Amino acid sequence: MHLPGHILHGGDYNPEQWDDAAIDSDLEALAAAGINTLTLNVFGWAGLQPGPDRFEWDRLDSLMDRVHTRGFGVILATPTAALPPWLAAAEPTTMRVDFEGRRHGYGQRHHFCPTSSVFRAYSGSIAEALAQRYHLHPALLAWHIGNEYGGACYCDHCTVGFRRWLLQAHGGLDELNRDWCTQIWSHRFTDIDQIPAPSALTEHWGGPYRSGFPIITLEYKRYMTEQFAACMEAEIHQVRRFDVEHPVTTNLMGAYEHLDYFRFARELDVVAWDNYPRTDRAWPEMAFNHSLMRAVGRGKPLWLMEQAPVATTCRDVNPTRPPGVLRRWSLQALAQGSDTVLHFQMRTAPAGSEMWFGGVLDHRGRTDTRTYREVAALGRELTRLDDLVGSRVRARAAVLMDWDSWWYGRVVDGFSDHWDLVSQAQGWHEALARYLGGVDITDGRDDLSRYEIIIAPSLYLAHDDVIDALRRYVAAGGTLVAGPMSFATAATGRVLIDERVDALLGCQIEERDAREPDDGVELVLPDATTDTAHHLFEILRPTGGRVIGTWESGWFAGGAAIIRNEFGEGTVVRLGALLSEAGRRRLVASLIEPSPGHPLAEELEHTSRSGTRGTFDIVLNHGQVPLDWTPAGDATDMLTGSRVYAGAPVTIPAGGACVLRRA
Amino acid sequence: MHLPGHILHGGDYNPEQWDDAAIDSDLEALAAAGINTLTLNVFGWAGLQPGPDRFEWDRLDSLMDRVHTRGFGVILATPTAALPPWLAAAEPTTMRVDFEGRRHGYGQRHHFCPTSSVFRAYSGSIAEALAQRYHLHPALLAWHIGNEYGGACYCDHCTVGFRRWLLQAHGGLDELNRDWCTQIWSHRFTDIDQIPAPSALTEHWGGPYRSGFPIITLEYKRYMTEQFAACMEAEIHQVRRFDVEHPVTTNLMGAYEHLDYFRFARELDVVAWDNYPRTDRAWPEMAFNHSLMRAVGRGKPLWLMEQAPVATTCRDVNPTRPPGVLRRWSLQALAQGSDTVLHFQMRTAPAGSEMWFGGVLDHRGRTDTRTYREVAALGRELTRLDDLVGSRVRARAAVLMDWDSWWYGRVVDGFSDHWDLVSQAQGWHEALARYLGGVDITDGRDDLSRYEIIIAPSLYLAHDDVIDALRRYVAAGGTLVAGPMSFATAATGRVLIDERVDALLGCQIEERDAREPDDGVELVLPDATTDTAHHLFEILRPTGGRVIGTWESGWFAGGAAIIRNEFGEGTVVRLGALLSEAGRRRLVASLIEPSPGHPLAEELEHTSRSGTRGTFDIVLNHGQVPLDWTPAGDATDMLTGSRVYAGAPVTIPAGGACVLRRA
Amino acid sequence: MHLPGHILHGGDYNPEQWDDAAIDSDLEALAAAGINTLTLNVFGWAGLQPGPDRFEWDRLDSLMDRVHTRGFGVILATPTAALPPWLAAAEPTTMRVDFEGRRHGYGQRHHFCPTSSVFRAYSGSIAEALAQRYHLHPALLAWHIGNEYGGACYCDHCTVGFRRWLLQAHGGLDELNRDWCTQIWSHRFTDIDQIPAPSALTEHWGGPYRSGFPIITLEYKRYMTEQFAACMEAEIHQVRRFDVEHPVTTNLMGAYEHLDYFRFARELDVVAWDNYPRTDRAWPEMAFNHSLMRAVGRGKPLWLMEQAPVATTCRDVNPTRPPGVLRRWSLQALAQGSDTVLHFQMRTAPAGSEMWFGGVLDHRGRTDTRTYREVAALGRELTRLDDLVGSRVRARAAVLMDWDSWWYGRVVDGFSDHWDLVSQAQGWHEALARYLGGVDITDGRDDLSRYEIIIAPSLYLAHDDVIDALRRYVAAGGTLVAGPMSFATAATGRVLIDERVDALLGCQIEERDAREPDDGVELVLPDATTDTAHHLFEILRPTGGRVIGTWESGWFAGGAAIIRNEFGEGTVVRLGALLSEAGRRRLVASLIEPSPGHPLAEELEHTSRSGTRGTFDIVLNHGQVPLDWTPAGDATDMLTGSRVYAGAPVTIPAGGACVLRRA
Repeated sequence: MHLPGHILHGGDYNPEQWDDAAIDSDLEALAAAGINTLTLNVFGWAGLQPGPDRFEWDRLDSLMDRVHTRGFGVILATPTAALPPWLAAAEPTTMRVDFEGRRHGYGQRHHFCPTSSVFRAYSGSIAEALAQRYHLHPALLAWHIGNEYGGACYCDHCTVGFRRWLLQAHGGLDELNRDWCTQIWSHRFTDIDQIPAPSALTEHWGGPYRSGFPIITLEYKRYMTEQFAACMEAEIHQVRRFDVEHPVTTNLMGAYEHLDYFRFARELDVVAWDNYPRTDRAWPEMAFNHSLMRAVGRGKPLWLMEQAPVATTCRDVNPTRPPGVLRRWSLQALAQGSDTVLHFQMRTAPAGSEMWFGGVLDHRGRTDTRTYREVAALGRELTRLDDLVGSRVRARAAVLMDWDSWWYGRVVDGFSDHWDLVSQAQGWHEALARYLGGVDITDGRDDLSRYEIIIAPSLYLAHDDVIDALRRYVAAGGTLVAGPMSFATAATGRVLIDERVDALLGCQIEERDAREPDDGVELVLPDATTDTAHHLFEILRPTGGRVIGTWESGWFAGGAAIIRNEFGEGTVVRLGALLSEAGRRRLVASLIEPSPGHPLAEELEHTSRSGTRGTFDIVLNHGQVPLDWTPAGDATDMLTGSRVYAGAPVTIPAGGACVLRRA
Repeated sequence: MHLPGHILHGGDYNPEQWDDAAIDSDLEALAAAGINTLTLNVFGWAGLQPGPDRFEWDRLDSLMDRVHTRGFGVILATPTAALPPWLAAAEPTTMRVDFEGRRHGYGQRHHFCPTSSVFRAYSGSIAEALAQRYHLHPALLAWHIGNEYGGACYCDHCTVGFRRWLLQAHGGLDELNRDWCTQIWSHRFTDIDQIPAPSALTEHWGGPYRSGFPIITLEYKRYMTEQFAACMEAEIHQVRRFDVEHPVTTNLMGAYEHLDYFRFARELDVVAWDNYPRTDRAWPEMAFNHSLMRAVGRGKPLWLMEQAPVATTCRDVNPTRPPGVLRRWSLQALAQGSDTVLHFQMRTAPAGSEMWFGGVLDHRGRTDTRTYREVAALGRELTRLDDLVGSRVRARAAVLMDWDSWWYGRVVDGFSDHWDLVSQAQGWHEALARYLGGVDITDGRDDLSRYEIIIAPSLYLAHDDVIDALRRYVAAGGTLVAGPMSFATAATGRVLIDERVDALLGCQIEERDAREPDDGVELVLPDATTDTAHHLFEILRPTGGRVIGTWESGWFAGGAAIIRNEFGEGTVVRLGALLSEAGRRRLVASLIEPSPGHPLAEELEHTSRSGTRGTFDIVLNHGQVPLDWTPAGDATDMLTGSRVYAGAPVTIPAGGACVLRRA
Repeated sequence: MHLPGHILHGGDYNPEQWDDAAIDSDLEALAAAGINTLTLNVFGWAGLQPGPDRFEWDRLDSLMDRVHTRGFGVILATPTAALPPWLAAAEPTTMRVDFEGRRHGYGQRHHFCPTSSVFRAYSGSIAEALAQRYHLHPALLAWHIGNEYGGACYCDHCTVGFRRWLLQAHGGLDELNRDWCTQIWSHRFTDIDQIPAPSALTEHWGGPYRSGFPIITLEYKRYMTEQFAACMEAEIHQVRRFDVEHPVTTNLMGAYEHLDYFRFARELDVVAWDNYPRTDRAWPEMAFNHSLMRAVGRGKPLWLMEQAPVATTCRDVNPTRPPGVLRRWSLQALAQGSDTVLHFQMRTAPAGSEMWFGGVLDHRGRTDTRTYREVAALGRELTRLDDLVGSRVRARAAVLMDWDSWWYGRVVDGFSDHWDLVSQAQGWHEALARYLGGVDITDGRDDLSRYEIIIAPSLYLAHDDVIDALRRYVAAGGTLVAGPMSFATAATGRVLIDERVDALLGCQIEERDAREPDDGVELVLPDATTDTAHHLFEILRPTGGRVIGTWESGWFAGGAAIIRNEFGEGTVVRLGALLSEAGRRRLVASLIEPSPGHPLAEELEHTSRSGTRGTFDIVLNHGQVPLDWTPAGDATDMLTGSRVYAGAPVTIPAGGACVLRRA
């Protein structure tokens, strides 16, 4: 397979929205800004195929040639994320039925039923036609399947498929009744056709997180992931019939709840994602999401497929990126393993719901704007960083998270709804990164032996193989931290009582308590400092482990909050509290030696990448004041050519970055 | 009828969730904890009847024998609160249509349409089969019909039944048009089939409390109560064909909005309820709900059917009961008239949506837990309190409330939505209890002559017979306090202008005003202190009565806020303000002499029960510090054997209680 | 056409709710209170037409005669806002399908599908029958068509009509695809029947303000306005077949979002509206709404059709009008151009959802109430003000707003959702009024030359003819202020890049930023003071204009916030900030000389009306303390007969008013 050796810089371009003159001046302006890659055809279906048996290739043919002539590479999309109106009108079952049981009509995008055989036939066919026509085109860099897969469908066809899938997964109806414990609430099924899709009209009350039978909800989420994967993979297989040279990818969305990307991404050649952070202090969230995307790729290349050069539109408030942010966030993508810097989009759309979603070029196509100048400056810098391509982020630690735990922890009632796995995982990722640099994420199905420490913020649902892997990891000398509700249930969704786990942890749960969000409880950490925990409080019962943290307030004061167990050559810390940010840092500090140059000053981010073209340290200052960082060895800043020296602090300007090639 | 002579201690047990070995050790552990009663089969339908014409009795047969052998009594449930999947699949009309007009598929529980003839046939048939089979079983203590009846259905069948029910209730369509004043908004019905069920698709906008024609909504609520009652009563009649010895009950839910329990409970032998308090400071809410449940029973025995020994699961935050709370709340149930202490449940479920709803035994079945120890200690104490069984709470005062007023006050637009009858009633119940001890609740259809004072916080909808009863009560010397919006409408839902009421109150409404929740208005109370009222303000016009409270701020300063009227031998206080907690207490103090030992210190609760086996004073300290209480006569603490003496203060420890048998 | 020469005082009366004795005493009481006008029959359909082919006229006949005998004039309603149940039952398609795609059953009112041919036939027929029967009745003053038209329907019939309407509006499907830019998100339509009604089941997500294709949503709103107008106009045409003497009107609702009243009101003879303010400090909102209603009438008479004499019911909290408010708000209506003071309603309804919506007479029909006394006093005063009738408010300034901008600004995603056109327009209206007195509103399609200054708070969607009109206006010497997002899109909904606009404004948009609601940004105004703007921030690029306001904080500090451009003889101020109230006032002060007697003291309101019967100054003190106002010339207070003199301050009491006839 051919992977580009340079940093892809560019992003989505929708020339169908512009006339020829505009396209010409756009391409000239983009080339001048160091843009080398265009993503085309993401929403081109209605244009390419104006009717069931009719294709119009002229415009795309000429466009491919035109951008090639200008020197751009193309990430070519199968346009299957938005059906043409004629298809929805002729085949209403291609449209989804929502959680409320309502069949939708045509509108928006991302609207197809993932089990619709009509959709699969048409989407496969347009993918095939594109692959056949363009797989040898010299501009082609990669294939982009669909767009931002997600959501769910609850139609009869999906429901029937769910039942079939369940039978296969469980081996039969008796097994399913047993696994699901259907004697509860009189749910024993005597025919597979009695099983409902878990919607607002069946198992749910009070929305998607209140299920009368949470295991059905969990299984439907697993099933939906498989169906969307099958849609995508059907297109991938069409592409690969003609083309095994160019990598195939799609754009994931970071910590996106509704698809289990560990399962979903299995057939991709490259993991790519769209980075639209939700929080004010975005960089730790983005670092986490980059790491998660690396994780679901299990070692495959990582591409940043979309980011907003100006502002998004879909939130209540959509701030514009201030000066310098686009550069820093782009360099962060590289720091976290991306081989691309791709923006959405090249020119702001002239209409539609995203007409204020700012592009590299604005509505007027001006090149004398701040954004254009920043992109052009970035383009120049990126050319100095091509040696990063192909290298991988190095990590001493991993955070363990998986979608089953995320889903089940949200959908099973009890204790407190005011916390969730992802925010915990992000908090631990940040604490580790400050102490160690690059941090991985794992679902426990990777080679764990490379990590000195693994933190499972809340492994709510523990699969047998993951339990075994963690036991092996610890037995061989690893350190595992397992947070609240870890090992709560088995893969069947039933409460987990398991001697293997008891032995690993050296403790059981004595009791759990919960409190309103503002009502904290104090505990003493292993370093004898006090922290305040929130939401959920586990009182632990040592059964071999040693109490290293104790509740200090609440009716359970004196109870065990943290237990340390030696297991084989390694150590398990069972943590019964949702710690504060400071508490997480202190616990990390008590468990592992920092990496050189760490712990980092506030708002500094550092990772190392290494590969055949070198070993690199990228240091980013996300703060408002200059901060120092001390390299462990001599190196050269690839952006400026300056030399830095082991032990001599380097000052990173506010908002600045350096990319060091180790000597 | 045979009623147990000892306190039933135990609760729900779901042995279908456990294997035989677990059941054996569970029963042993439960017996050792003083558990004597198990509620069985609440969700057993799918297990008992795996198909339309097939019953499997083996498991329940052997279980009944097994628990009997171990010495447990059984409250045996008809399992009709959750249909088997095969029934829902074969007969979709057994499932409800919701307020949004959507027919639901199988899922959750409490999902049956109450007018479905199919459901009624099947539920009657399983009730019949159970009664026939087990009515002579020596373990049997009582019948438990269904579970937590409630909700509503809006299907066509219910709608048709509604029309038939209306015709019967009103005597004809002309009468209905007149009663409902259908000339408003062009609603004159010329055929009964034109009348809609009042759903989101017909009369409602902005949810269930915004009705375009509130009387239709009110009548539908009355109708639904009757339909659920009919479902339950059909099962009761099946049971009684075989068994008139054992009492029949179901589990009510305290101040549950959607069923008028005064109507619903008429056929029960015992009123039982599930106590899951919603507030932080739960004891006054629970005292109120216990009293309300006594009230709907109109003198029948009261059983506490469910309470959480550990934590619930259905709320956003589900705190665990701290040490001692289970005991105190259990003793409060006895103080408020219960003859049982039953928990949900005996062992925590291994799966399902309530898998974290804590049981007496936890998932592991451990007996070395705090909860188990507390239950066992409670079990030992309860054996000393059996003489309480059969006695009744004695009350000098009553709070008047009924569902029609609750419903109509919420569904008719106007003034302020930020208060409701139940919170007012609870506030008055607490004020009276602090001053008098036990306080009853009445809908006005009991023997009122036993009360020295009756407070109607807001008798919004006044039935003719209640008006007459209140007139008789006051004329005979009683004191009646009638709060804001009292006597607002007649039973037809029309504004009430009635000379009988005018004469009783000695005043009319001059004007009403309303303000935002934070915006209070001052008034002077009869004791010349000032209070701040909120939400709704009535300016009264004396027409014979005397002004004893005056508005002090607002544009209506100087207007009458409270009017006292002498009527016959008695007194009516018409109160135009929603008082503060302190204001309620001061008004009560100005109207009645306290009982001996009252007013109670903060967080003390006291009631007296008396019956053939003695007269008892139960005193509970719900607070964090020891509090004194002074008995009026000599007595013996049944828990400790200590003697107490008239006039000599007894110190109740923080969180403690004493149960005194009067000498 | 005959328009009354005196002030109509009265309002809705629903005698069908009362017996004959009550009606007699009501009419006597109303006449004694100076009521001269009754609005009848608004919800009388079911009574008048009890079946498809049956009319019952007796009651209305006798009522018309009876009120005429008593001396009342009648505004006679076509009762088509609430269908009779028999019609809905026989013809379910007369009922609407809501935004969620659900066909509604009978209930509430305002429930008819506006494209239903059955509804149009029946509503036309009852209008015809009424007009034919009563057009010569001596009591008749005017026709009142339906009631409070509004809402929307999404049924198949409406959808089909939408497509037909679109084809006609755009000239063909190709033109529509081009205008809508349907290449975006693969929306190219190849058959008109592929176009959806934009509902929650098609283009919308997250409610009515999140559209996947906002132009479809905008067009549907335009279409719905046309359909409701067509319903109303069909009735008007029936009336006019018999009666061209009496004016025809309906009751609009001020700044009601869902109908474009500029289009909707075109066929009315009189613009009438219902004034139910939503805010605590209501007078500026009401002044704005009165002005908006004048605007949509384009010079036709203005009638206040409904206001609450006591309290409304449809809000969460419904305060009662304190003493004096009814008078002041009634005089404000006259100040703002109304020739009527009409209340809803004459007697409080005895039942229904509005049973607490207070009337001039209360439920008991008492005349010794505050409200009755206030109405009677007002009635006496109004007889002195009849010379106001027929005069028009004079304004030096206008605020420019239109529904297309309002709709599209809400439905297109981007920047900040936390502000809207109407609140901005109201703020500017208030700022101008304080400085100038009467202020008009315009959509740009009036004679603009009469205004010295026009402020367009946010002309989001700029129609070509309005662009041209504004250019002519400025070129001829006018002053135009154009606020944020002005000229953002063309009438097609596409982003507007237009040399005519560039030349007019002398600037372009450099960038835009947005922030959370509490996060303000400072700017310097032309008077060198600092203001704090919120939500949306435009950084302007001068292209001929001069920077007269500069951002002072944020990353764009130093950027242009306000640009002034000389265009022809006039001036354009392009304002990039949403100013504070103080900022708006200061900007107005920097642009225009105040009118005599201005700027007004806080809480004073002043307008002038003039016509053939004189020129009048009305001054209202909405505040809590007396305030002075200085007339520019001698005049006589029509209420008191007092003379006032040029330059000699007049003291207006707190809550008081004077109505001066200029000498």
